Amino acid sequence: MASSTQGQVITCKAAVAYEPNKPLVIEDVQVAPPQAGEVRVKILFTALCHTDHYTWSGKDPEGLFPCILGHEAAGIVESVGEGVTDVQPGDHVIPCYQAECKECKFCKSGKTNLCGKIRSATGAGVMMNDLKSRFSINGKPIYHFMGTSTFSQYTVVHDVSVAKINPQAPLDKVCLLGCGVSTGLGAVWNTAKVEAGSVVAVFGLGTVGLAVAEGAKSAGASRIIGIDIDSKKFDVAKNFGVTEFVNPKDHDKPIQQVLVDLTDGGVDYSFECIGNVSVMRAALECCHKGWGTSVIVGVAASGQEIATRPFQLVTGRVWKGTAFGGFKSRTHVPWLVEKYLNKEIKVDEYITHNMNLADMNKAFHLLHEGGCLRCVLAMQD
Amino acid sequence: MASSTQGQVITCKAAVAYEPNKPLVIEDVQVAPPQAGEVRVKILFTALCHTDHYTWSGKDPEGLFPCILGHEAAGIVESVGEGVTDVQPGDHVIPCYQAECKECKFCKSGKTNLCGKIRSATGAGVMMNDLKSRFSINGKPIYHFMGTSTFSQYTVVHDVSVAKINPQAPLDKVCLLGCGVSTGLGAVWNTAKVEAGSVVAVFGLGTVGLAVAEGAKSAGASRIIGIDIDSKKFDVAKNFGVTEFVNPKDHDKPIQQVLVDLTDGGVDYSFECIGNVSVMRAALECCHKGWGTSVIVGVAASGQEIATRPFQLVTGRVWKGTAFGGFKSRTHVPWLVEKYLNKEIKVDEYITHNMNLADMNKAFHLLHEGGCLRCVLAMQD
Ligand SMILES: NC(=O)c1ccc[n+]([C@@H]2O[C@H](COP(=O)([O-])OP(=O)(O)OC[C@H]3O[C@@H](n4cnc5c(N)ncnc54)[C@H](O)[C@@H]3O)[C@@H](O)[C@H]2O)c1
Ligand SMILES: NC(=O)c1ccc[n+]([C@@H]2O[C@H](COP(=O)([O-])OP(=O)(O)OC[C@H]3O[C@@H](n4cnc5c(N)ncnc54)[C@H](O)[C@@H]3O)[C@@H](O)[C@H]2O)c1
Ligand SMILES: [Zn+2]
Ligand SMILES: [Zn+2]
Ligand SMILES: [Zn+2]
Ligand SMILES: [Zn+2]
Repeated sequence: MASSTQGQVITCKAAVAYEPNKPLVIEDVQVAPPQAGEVRVKILFTALCHTDHYTWSGKDPEGLFPCILGHEAAGIVESVGEGVTDVQPGDHVIPCYQAECKECKFCKSGKTNLCGKIRSATGAGVMMNDLKSRFSINGKPIYHFMGTSTFSQYTVVHDVSVAKINPQAPLDKVCLLGCGVSTGLGAVWNTAKVEAGSVVAVFGLGTVGLAVAEGAKSAGASRIIGIDIDSKKFDVAKNFGVTEFVNPKDHDKPIQQVLVDLTDGGVDYSFECIGNVSVMRAALECCHKGWGTSVIVGVAASGQEIATRPFQLVTGRVWKGTAFGGFKSRTHVPWLVEKYLNKEIKVDEYITHNMNLADMNKAFHLLHEGGCLRCVLAMQD
Repeated sequence: MASSTQGQVITCKAAVAYEPNKPLVIEDVQVAPPQAGEVRVKILFTALCHTDHYTWSGKDPEGLFPCILGHEAAGIVESVGEGVTDVQPGDHVIPCYQAECKECKFCKSGKTNLCGKIRSATGAGVMMNDLKSRFSINGKPIYHFMGTSTFSQYTVVHDVSVAKINPQAPLDKVCLLGCGVSTGLGAVWNTAKVEAGSVVAVFGLGTVGLAVAEGAKSAGASRIIGIDIDSKKFDVAKNFGVTEFVNPKDHDKPIQQVLVDLTDGGVDYSFECIGNVSVMRAALECCHKGWGTSVIVGVAASGQEIATRPFQLVTGRVWKGTAFGGFKSRTHVPWLVEKYLNKEIKVDEYITHNMNLADMNKAFHLLHEGGCLRCVLAMQD
């Protein structure tokens, strides 16, 4: 299926971030054709995630401007560059910010989902082939972001970053599997490997924390304790498997002590899904001596550090972290989509708002309102 | 085999620590008979370890004085208290500072070697049964230490803290299996679970670090990089499996960077065997992205904290610690003794000095000399 735009520059709408902390500008961008090993994708739906906001806010020292943000999306392949064989025009895909080349030291290790192949290019906001951007406005280049840049009606990504999914999956839903929901599920299944009967603490009940709760429930956890400073989160969290709630504001004692008392010595697994370094410490210290494992999922502001007494580790606690929940993107995202189609995992329930590309700035603000989990934008309307 | 001293108070020599940082005093102590669940052991040989020195120095806020230090020893059961069935007079034993009751939540978890049964009593320097000490001098009680107090010709320990070993093992050698050597081996085998082909970094080449190297060699590590600020350690370290040496003083770059450069991205496993919190950080940060695991073995001074950027963990490094190398004392110490008898693990090679109880203070000073690994004291001469 050759498309009429193949080989042509496409002019389409995108939300451009010109400067930190300034409203995104919806305007026409030129999207160059994919080069060797690249795929041009028509983005149908994109959601917003905190990492977009973090870079936009200027707090990310590696953030490059002007750029096109966005990394939680789904679309259809428009055309492919030379040598691309794994996908073809018309395929339904989820662009993934974690690549999976299946060839590098990382991919072959069998120990991690991080891939080294295109990292230097995506870090520099460009494509591997010529170290240039495929986005421009009147000849002025606009940086890529996380190798995905899904806040555009068309984007160009590396072939190693494209997960081909079942075409029957509703793209306005499964776009969420590009980041937050997958990350939470994987943190439980791949990184912590929670066993049946475990006592689990989840710090932060946003999309990621709720997906952790869902993952823990499906792993057979006996108690899932949700911790959030916003008590409004508790009602919805019940639907995701949280069995008990603790608001740190209701207690004078440090939250780790509250949890140790509540669980006769500490939890088996804890997950930090906020990005707050002092909560990361609490999440470790509320773990049971001898075996409790704490997984850092939240992304802290640049330069911040975690700390604890080494005795916490010497007495058997384990401190880990996770990126994209340990899922290998091209292998596991299609598998997660199947699980969704088989009703084995929730996705719809995380979507609290639907808007259009034109509403991008409104959607960005929603991110910080307690009532919003995920807002999905229709990109082509 | 009933001994003539059974049921009697025994008066014998011990090295008593009256005050922090003051020379130990070798003098007569009264050792009460074992009560229910207790075992009185004639100590034949004891080695010295840094934890003895740490408490002696006054830096341990939980240190209690006057006390009898010592926790790396071997001896023969003199008599047992009511209900003790696992050992009897004449049995050769290693007193263990990690108990193994096989009944508590910890022992039954299958996930840790820490045992909760007598911890509160040993922490308070007394015995579980009546929360009193079995040591006294002219009626004045002297505290126990780590549930072992092996700097005495006779000591009383809980039955859950006594490992019965093969009577053919030379007690002047296998006493070392009561702490340092076992800790290093177990850190590799139980805590890190190093696989064949791994690249390993060992920070600190004292007894514990050398035992880590030995454990890594037997696990099939392809490279074992020893790091020490004392270059004199390097020659002896070769005999324990260290294949490369790095002295941080020879480099301007941070030691973690030196190791990352040396290993094309970082090591698979690292072990901190010093007790220095900034080295603990370096040991984590020299681990390979995606899977590198760092194990804290060294004991830091009270109140000190470890720190790093959470990104280190989010990108796949794992931070752990170990106590007694994860070995269950009564189960595994006899097994380690067999391995020694079968020449599968070294022990003799760690012993650099032999002295008598009377030389205790001299031996204590040796601990801080580069040339000393372990000094074994004959207690009955
Ligand atoms: N590691 C990864 O691969 C990965 C992937 C996606 C997202 N993330 C990160 O995960 C984190 C969570 O993402 P999200 O989309 O669920 O965010 P969110 O903002 O929707 O949820 C955060 C929740 O934490 C609560 N909270 C804030 N401060 C708190 C505190 N001190 N104690 C308890 N609760 C507190 C908030 O009320 C909110 O409910 C973010 O840091 C995001 O960047 C990481
Ligand atoms: N976790 C446990 O169960 C356990 C058990 C036994 C001992 N330990 C601890 O293990 C540690 C090591 O014990 P050991 O008997 O081998 O001690 P040791 O003093 O014999 O060895 C320490 C080595 O570290 C080197 N060193 C010091 N500072 C250094 C630095 N900044 N960089 C590199 N090397 C440095 C010294 O030169 C020495 O060779 C101690 O802290 C001890 O308390 C822990
Ligand atoms: Zn995200
Ligand atoms: Zn790869
Ligand atoms: Zn010791
Ligand atoms: Zn126990």
